[in-house]
Amino acid sequence: MSQPLRLGIAGLGTVGVGVVKIVRQQAALLTMRTGREVTISAVSARSRGKDRGVNLDHYGWEDDPVKLATRDDVDVYVELMGGEDGPAKASIEAALKAGKDVVTANKALLAHHGQALAELAEASGSVIRYEAAVAGGIPIIKSLTEGLAANEITRVMGVMNGTCNYILTRMEATGQGYNALFEEADKLGYLEADPNLDVGGIDAGHKLAILSSLAFGTQVDFDGVELEGIQRVTIEDIRQAADMGYRIKLLGVAQMSGRGLEQRMSPCLVPAQSPLGQLEGGTNMVVVEGSDVGQVVLRGAGAGEGPTASAVMGDVCDIARGIRYPVFGQKADSLKRAPRAQSALPAPYYLRLGLKDKPGAMAKVAAVLGEAGVSIDRMRQYGHEDDSAPVLIVTHKTTRANLDAALAGIEQTDVVTEAPVALRIEAV
Amino acid sequence: MSQPLRLGIAGLGTVGVGVVKIVRQQAALLTMRTGREVTISAVSARSRGKDRGVNLDHYGWEDDPVKLATRDDVDVYVELMGGEDGPAKASIEAALKAGKDVVTANKALLAHHGQALAELAEASGSVIRYEAAVAGGIPIIKSLTEGLAANEITRVMGVMNGTCNYILTRMEATGQGYNALFEEADKLGYLEADPNLDVGGIDAGHKLAILSSLAFGTQVDFDGVELEGIQRVTIEDIRQAADMGYRIKLLGVAQMSGRGLEQRMSPCLVPAQSPLGQLEGGTNMVVVEGSDVGQVVLRGAGAGEGPTASAVMGDVCDIARGIRYPVFGQKADSLKRAPRAQSALPAPYYLRLGLKDKPGAMAKVAAVLGEAGVSIDRMRQYGHEDDSAPVLIVTHKTTRANLDAALAGIEQTDVVTEAPVALRIEAV
Repeated sequence: MSQPLRLGIAGLGTVGVGVVKIVRQQAALLTMRTGREVTISAVSARSRGKDRGVNLDHYGWEDDPVKLATRDDVDVYVELMGGEDGPAKASIEAALKAGKDVVTANKALLAHHGQALAELAEASGSVIRYEAAVAGGIPIIKSLTEGLAANEITRVMGVMNGTCNYILTRMEATGQGYNALFEEADKLGYLEADPNLDVGGIDAGHKLAILSSLAFGTQVDFDGVELEGIQRVTIEDIRQAADMGYRIKLLGVAQMSGRGLEQRMSPCLVPAQSPLGQLEGGTNMVVVEGSDVGQVVLRGAGAGEGPTASAVMGDVCDIARGIRYPVFGQKADSLKRAPRAQSALPAPYYLRLGLKDKPGAMAKVAAVLGEAGVSIDRMRQYGHEDDSAPVLIVTHKTTRANLDAALAGIEQTDVVTEAPVALRIEAV
Repeated sequence: MSQPLRLGIAGLGTVGVGVVKIVRQQAALLTMRTGREVTISAVSARSRGKDRGVNLDHYGWEDDPVKLATRDDVDVYVELMGGEDGPAKASIEAALKAGKDVVTANKALLAHHGQALAELAEASGSVIRYEAAVAGGIPIIKSLTEGLAANEITRVMGVMNGTCNYILTRMEATGQGYNALFEEADKLGYLEADPNLDVGGIDAGHKLAILSSLAFGTQVDFDGVELEGIQRVTIEDIRQAADMGYRIKLLGVAQMSGRGLEQRMSPCLVPAQSPLGQLEGGTNMVVVEGSDVGQVVLRGAGAGEGPTASAVMGDVCDIARGIRYPVFGQKADSLKRAPRAQSALPAPYYLRLGLKDKPGAMAKVAAVLGEAGVSIDRMRQYGHEDDSAPVLIVTHKTTRANLDAALAGIEQTDVVTEAPVALRIEAV
């Protein structure tokens, strides 16, 4: 039997405690499967005295995660504090410089500093593993990087923020509006401290940026993700979409074309009968399309103590087994900087306008759309009681550039009462 | 850059040709991702002259796969001939004895000889990888063995024979009977040379036996799989199931309980709205339930040139990257022989009886069920024109043992016209 693999765990929130529990409760299983004992040398968190429902007496304690990360009796530094900078970044850098391996669930850190960290890890012969950073318990990082390694990946899509999917599916189920469900999610503790990370699509955007890098061999480019949150999706949009056989999901799509890498995280219409359309509540789903494998779909819990800790410990098991490869699946200096192709590929769009109740309003809208080269597939105008008439339009396939030109033109007319809402209809 | 990884490929059917194509077409990508060139030294197949649509001139040729497997210029022996014995087994054994690594898609071989091959591989320091043996392009072996390694697995389920799922979903869609769709599948080339491998559940049973071993750390025990094919499923069963909100799938279930390991491959009723229930045509799906991760679902193409070659080459990439661990995820001598617990866990069942048209027939059936401790949840008797009245019964939860006793009792009465059909209703 080899030497034990010794962990240092920073961050004892839900996930950290889950990891401690697995190390203790599954000790025999971990040893059986990896051929090594997995132990915890020391831990670190903000408050030492707090009762976390798990006995930490046998582990060393460090107030400073940087000290934890560089302890002689730590082989793998497990970073579960989160945050794109600050102690998480400092301690991971310290761990790598000290030649330690790193396991983290920190999507923000990797989305912003992935390339620099990959280079640092390579220089010191360390690995960074981060299965828990994307889609919780679903082994998507592993599937994409290893299982599907022989495929040229053509598209990656996913619903990767459980809170947004909870809000959207509850809106449909209860008929309540966005604000009511936002409050419900808040009460249930589903929202990040900064809710915009969830409902603004940022958290899911971080995840998409990581998947893009793995799929296309590119440097992580979070700033290249077109981000749009779910805040402007109304119950009316959801009903109209349902009427047409669609559901609205906060969907991430990454796609490489001749024009470059397109990364979008935005509310989209997807067929109600598709696996993505049928996804309820907090569950996550990632769809990978490859040159040879075709479409592979993975589905599971995207958050929570057990699923996230399962992913963290899967990475620990890999390191215990000696599974090692570069941080983004290929050498850091071989990762390309892809040009950004913002919504380069055409698609149909769903538009919602509030039209002023006066003669010729609709004609103006139709004219502006036509001038921008956007043609109308279906249109409905509804009865109304105030002075804003809801108009729904489904366009034929158009580029986002043409659509944006049309929307800007429509806003410049004096016939709309608010900025138009445009949701892409994604072929999944 | 490391030395090239040199393959010897035996079997140039659909999958073998697919593997050759990937090695040629994705050469740059494979080198980028694995850090090594992947090359083909030599190939072997039954007929050298046959046009396979791919140029083999640059590769050595061996008529004898054993010779191919032991060539000095072969690092990884890729066995794609199939068959549970014969040349496949002989050549893999020869490769292992010569210290070569092995990649295979051969489920029958592993289901029957997995333990012996694992021991042989370990003795010679070789690995055997077989992602393509189960569920085609879906990276389920990897997910189960690596990604979910920290979980105690509680249940594995799957629809893993695309031909059966094609027949069953086409029966529902077209209203045609089993025999007509069997012929259609045959014409489309979906059936194995021995169709019983498909429709008898044997092929899917092989796959389940492999997943069981990985999930529960047990020696592969194909003979312990309770097998039942789809041949007796009628269009009436499918319609009745649909009426009650179910669909019939050839479902594999492996589950460990205090009584031992339960492995079943049989037509089951699953909720129509569940991911398994919604699976159409030749697609495969595997559901894994773990102590921490909860339920993870993987879905993709279960067969075909591209998907299967993708899985084979994923294994090759792993070997190129130096990813190595025991054949069934833990040392061969640590794999337990689990007692067989045949359908130990109770479930509701769907029964179809042909009842003779005479007074008291139904009373006799009800009495036999009651004596065996099987209670009836729902029952329907249908109008009929011949002398056999179709009766459908849904039972409350019962053990298979009690149900079998009841079915035997019913057959011994003189009131049924044929052996009853019993399909388990699986909670998924």
